[in-house]
Amino acid sequence: MIIILSSQATKENLSHVTQMLEDRGYAVHLSEGVERTIVGAVGVPADATQKAAVMEQFEALAYVEKVVPVSKPYKVVNKAFHPEPTVIDVRGIKIGDPSSVVMMAGPCTVETEEQLMEAARAVKAAGATILRGGAFKPSTSPYSFHGHGEAALKMLAAAREELNMPIITEVMDVRDVEMVCQYADILQIGTRNMANFSLLNEIGKTQTPALLKRGMAATIEEWLQAAEYIANQGNKNIMLCERGIRTFETYTRNTFDINAIPALKELSHLPVIADPSHATGKASLVSAVSRAAVAAGADGLIIEVHPNPEKALKDGAQSLLPEAFVKLMQDLAPICTAVGRTL
Amino acid sequence: MIIILSSQATKENLSHVTQMLEDRGYAVHLSEGVERTIVGAVGVPADATQKAAVMEQFEALAYVEKVVPVSKPYKVVNKAFHPEPTVIDVRGIKIGDPSSVVMMAGPCTVETEEQLMEAARAVKAAGATILRGGAFKPSTSPYSFHGHGEAALKMLAAAREELNMPIITEVMDVRDVEMVCQYADILQIGTRNMANFSLLNEIGKTQTPALLKRGMAATIEEWLQAAEYIANQGNKNIMLCERGIRTFETYTRNTFDINAIPALKELSHLPVIADPSHATGKASLVSAVSRAAVAAGADGLIIEVHPNPEKALKDGAQSLLPEAFVKLMQDLAPICTAVGRTL
Amino acid sequence: MIIILSSQATKENLSHVTQMLEDRGYAVHLSEGVERTIVGAVGVPADATQKAAVMEQFEALAYVEKVVPVSKPYKVVNKAFHPEPTVIDVRGIKIGDPSSVVMMAGPCTVETEEQLMEAARAVKAAGATILRGGAFKPSTSPYSFHGHGEAALKMLAAAREELNMPIITEVMDVRDVEMVCQYADILQIGTRNMANFSLLNEIGKTQTPALLKRGMAATIEEWLQAAEYIANQGNKNIMLCERGIRTFETYTRNTFDINAIPALKELSHLPVIADPSHATGKASLVSAVSRAAVAAGADGLIIEVHPNPEKALKDGAQSLLPEAFVKLMQDLAPICTAVGRTL
Amino acid sequence: MIIILSSQATKENLSHVTQMLEDRGYAVHLSEGVERTIVGAVGVPADATQKAAVMEQFEALAYVEKVVPVSKPYKVVNKAFHPEPTVIDVRGIKIGDPSSVVMMAGPCTVETEEQLMEAARAVKAAGATILRGGAFKPSTSPYSFHGHGEAALKMLAAAREELNMPIITEVMDVRDVEMVCQYADILQIGTRNMANFSLLNEIGKTQTPALLKRGMAATIEEWLQAAEYIANQGNKNIMLCERGIRTFETYTRNTFDINAIPALKELSHLPVIADPSHATGKASLVSAVSRAAVAAGADGLIIEVHPNPEKALKDGAQSLLPEAFVKLMQDLAPICTAVGRTL
Repeated sequence: MIIILSSQATKENLSHVTQMLEDRGYAVHLSEGVERTIVGAVGVPADATQKAAVMEQFEALAYVEKVVPVSKPYKVVNKAFHPEPTVIDVRGIKIGDPSSVVMMAGPCTVETEEQLMEAARAVKAAGATILRGGAFKPSTSPYSFHGHGEAALKMLAAAREELNMPIITEVMDVRDVEMVCQYADILQIGTRNMANFSLLNEIGKTQTPALLKRGMAATIEEWLQAAEYIANQGNKNIMLCERGIRTFETYTRNTFDINAIPALKELSHLPVIADPSHATGKASLVSAVSRAAVAAGADGLIIEVHPNPEKALKDGAQSLLPEAFVKLMQDLAPICTAVGRTL
Repeated sequence: MIIILSSQATKENLSHVTQMLEDRGYAVHLSEGVERTIVGAVGVPADATQKAAVMEQFEALAYVEKVVPVSKPYKVVNKAFHPEPTVIDVRGIKIGDPSSVVMMAGPCTVETEEQLMEAARAVKAAGATILRGGAFKPSTSPYSFHGHGEAALKMLAAAREELNMPIITEVMDVRDVEMVCQYADILQIGTRNMANFSLLNEIGKTQTPALLKRGMAATIEEWLQAAEYIANQGNKNIMLCERGIRTFETYTRNTFDINAIPALKELSHLPVIADPSHATGKASLVSAVSRAAVAAGADGLIIEVHPNPEKALKDGAQSLLPEAFVKLMQDLAPICTAVGRTL
Repeated sequence: MIIILSSQATKENLSHVTQMLEDRGYAVHLSEGVERTIVGAVGVPADATQKAAVMEQFEALAYVEKVVPVSKPYKVVNKAFHPEPTVIDVRGIKIGDPSSVVMMAGPCTVETEEQLMEAARAVKAAGATILRGGAFKPSTSPYSFHGHGEAALKMLAAAREELNMPIITEVMDVRDVEMVCQYADILQIGTRNMANFSLLNEIGKTQTPALLKRGMAATIEEWLQAAEYIANQGNKNIMLCERGIRTFETYTRNTFDINAIPALKELSHLPVIADPSHATGKASLVSAVSRAAVAAGADGLIIEVHPNPEKALKDGAQSLLPEAFVKLMQDLAPICTAVGRTL
Repeated sequence: MIIILSSQATKENLSHVTQMLEDRGYAVHLSEGVERTIVGAVGVPADATQKAAVMEQFEALAYVEKVVPVSKPYKVVNKAFHPEPTVIDVRGIKIGDPSSVVMMAGPCTVETEEQLMEAARAVKAAGATILRGGAFKPSTSPYSFHGHGEAALKMLAAAREELNMPIITEVMDVRDVEMVCQYADILQIGTRNMANFSLLNEIGKTQTPALLKRGMAATIEEWLQAAEYIANQGNKNIMLCERGIRTFETYTRNTFDINAIPALKELSHLPVIADPSHATGKASLVSAVSRAAVAAGADGLIIEVHPNPEKALKDGAQSLLPEAFVKLMQDLAPICTAVGRTL
């Protein structure tokens, strides 16, 4: 790390900082400038445990102007340490494999068996290979529909049985992880739970693949640190899902951060999935953003499709009708080809 | 709610929308303009359960341009339904009482008994009436210090015993709620857990007062809906804590949303607390923002104080030294007097 | 527009609002609900001059809770009134033509004749058809290089002569518009000047095509209103350029709003250009975002290329080396083909 | 500045960087760590002209991971170089004087002589000492009212004559600066023009005091650099005005950045004014935010007051009725006293 002293720092201040660093096991390099002194702190602390806290201890000193971190705060998910891309095998479907783009689709919520099967058959017929559906919904309002819970999981399992499609579903409560693992092929961690560390740790103790949605106001660095929580517990089957970040724009529900796709490919080895449904909040924009995501390098997409959005219990405005989903797949195919992948 | 049809909507579209509304129990009022038709939907659904979902069902229709909600999505915490301010009694200290401003202070984290007692005695001597201290810490990095857990809670209880100060501490894991309730006088829900609905529900089932920190990117409306979750379960002893929101500014850790203080006083009857430590991330700015918050109408403050920030295991840069806290209390007193309250 | 009265509004309040509306020429439709009354105001004011002001007059009333606009605040650039896409002819190059994607490239700033020609020949050889280069630079610091002014414009004209490439260059000062028009084929309005209404009006009085960059914190609606300024003065040759918006993310310079591309295609008939250089601020991310923009429907791109970024007087970090630009063009070609367009 | 090399950088890369630095006149200090090498660049370039560009040249190198600036990019407005607070004398009123808080008030726009005089007399009677009023309005829509121009300036001058109140008014067009200087005592630079460098330079060449509003998405650093533009031209009579920044919150028009007040006091010596009218967009929140700003250290306030907001041609919703302004002054007085200043 680098410690920049204020221009008013004295010789005693400098000695104090140097001593603090040496006490913590760092080697010290001084760079005395005209206005300021810059202190380089080099070392490999026994473990990275106190890194952030140590930086703050120095920032607490009145005569320290700024502390600049040098190394990235994540290791296991860091591409620099693991250059090979991670490929996650889900019942034979290889997510993260550079030769394919994976399509996950289905209704936002499992409402009834009939609604689920209708949507599932439709998306399967159109070419999706993984079925999504919510059993537990994170509703902003306590009065909204919250999902059918385990009953919905059973319906998803039945759909998987009939259609031979793995299922991805969200788990919200740390006490439900074990139960949901019995049904789900992929556990989805929602945007509001990206920093629910108890949940991340619990999922990290399983071996079930996890799709980690970006917090709506999380930086890429915080996102990768959240992934590091899961990986640190032993579960490295993590895929990152960009679902839009919160900005000042009100025409769309969120702002899809397309920069994040190639950025993540530089920083990490984990597969990157795109969710254009939540990112736009408007069914009419989903197709274009899907194409953009694939063109930018996304390994897969997760899209909401409902047989009858005007009866949807949640997120009707962004769900695609089955016909629209078919069209999206048709428009997407040439883009996949253009980037050398099959859909 | 109001449904605005697109200028291309046909007579059949209008009939369909009208029918959908009547099926759901709404009375329909049409406002046919030159360019568009506006449909007013009036009614009192048996319960507010489907409100958001119903709105989305209409937004899903291609010929509906926009749906505008009219009533607020929260009831129990809504000032319109409960004009009297809520006052929460914590061992005799009345939070939300218009004649006083409550000061909660202490270290970010309970590190050792010695550190805790030193900080506790210092803040008590300076005039704080409630002691804060973290037993469970929400660290962005999996490698950081996460708190001493129950051992820390016991230390806090011992401090309460000696100093006669109620304690406030964060609970992060829904499975810890019952245990933490045995020690804490106020449960703190952190910014990253504002939308952890499982946790909100669990805390809602207790009668322990809760301090609900605003999500770093939560709108005031989402924040009040989160409070509604807790209140809906039966626990109305909720205080709201503004701790800064995430913006593009990098000089400070967050941006303290001073507008929110009077805004919340218009919309809700719950007490409003300010956290200038996390909101600024810089010890040197804490005093000014504290004064501002009280001048704007805050019912209390929660401030980090550490006997030795350069040894702090977390958040050293924003913690005040005991002497600085004493000065803050001195600078704050005349502001409290100016707004007719005692500190 | 729709006026939502507060639940405390009285009969007199309602009469007053109704009267105010009728005085302004509106027809009034009432929708009396259980909690509130909603007032629909319908009419075609002689001119749209006071629309925003009128809305605010009603919002000023204490018993009005909210005023909701219904029609869009722009007409000339509105797709609803002009469904045919606008195609701008620049010396034979048709920007906005659905059969092609236009590539504009060149250095950020014109530094020397040699540097300009080297960059210009390189981008032309790689397939770009329009040359960009800055003569006037909007530097955040008063001490930075501000461009060579008219001398640079002459160099750009010379480059156009030799290479038969139209030129696009930024004009910052309203007093320079006439002079710059003598050289430039396209006038660029920078992000910091999107709301410089004097400049927009001045450019609106010319017939020179204008590329209007989105303000870094401008909503799509504000952006289209800025375009309306230009169009309202008579110049309809406007292309919109998405260059990234300001968000909390710090890994990239801005956040490219990919949603905006299909959104603009829904709302307006103007061509849409993408600037992945400023949007990312990192040369390594430019290619992926370029592909994404074209896949999402962009009509063109504008990219910074410098023969020697480590000597660049500005924006070196995001400029592509000529070789990298060649590679970008190669990667982009199949994407163009996939969306049925030629590069 | 500090240059952090990527962990893949080679010895040749290091030599190249070192050579580039020496060529530019820097002294080089190396800090070779386990993973990376950090290069400290120290020196006093003849002029700060190329600072930002130089940093970018290094960032352009593939093997440079990050470049960290050390010194602040502004000098004249920097408190470190000018510790004494700047006090601007406007016809005897001392803005920035620690013993007083200055109140500037008046209508958003000068609509008629009658409206202006009514508002002016009201605010004067209530205790305001400087009159505001717009002659040129920055309207987002080309169809809105844009102000009466010079005719309005004459009305303001007449009001000054009768009431002995200096006037502050916005100038938008660089070509109007000379003319507006003949009337205005303080030139206001609007939020949309904070980065209109032509305008800043022109105003910098005058000696008329300038109130520089923060750009709605400008960082504190960019804001101070904009002030540096003005100061660099010779005009040091600059006051900074916080008017709210753009965030995701929609309940209020902007988010007043209260942190900025004490932050600016740390970084700069210029007076700091607060605009709670635009910052909140809601008349009911103006008083609380005014009190907060003064409690936090603001040197003055600028508030919109209209005799009849429901007839206002602009910004009716945030304008205070004269009676409300009187109440605000009454509520503000004890806060001023509490911070040791007179209103």
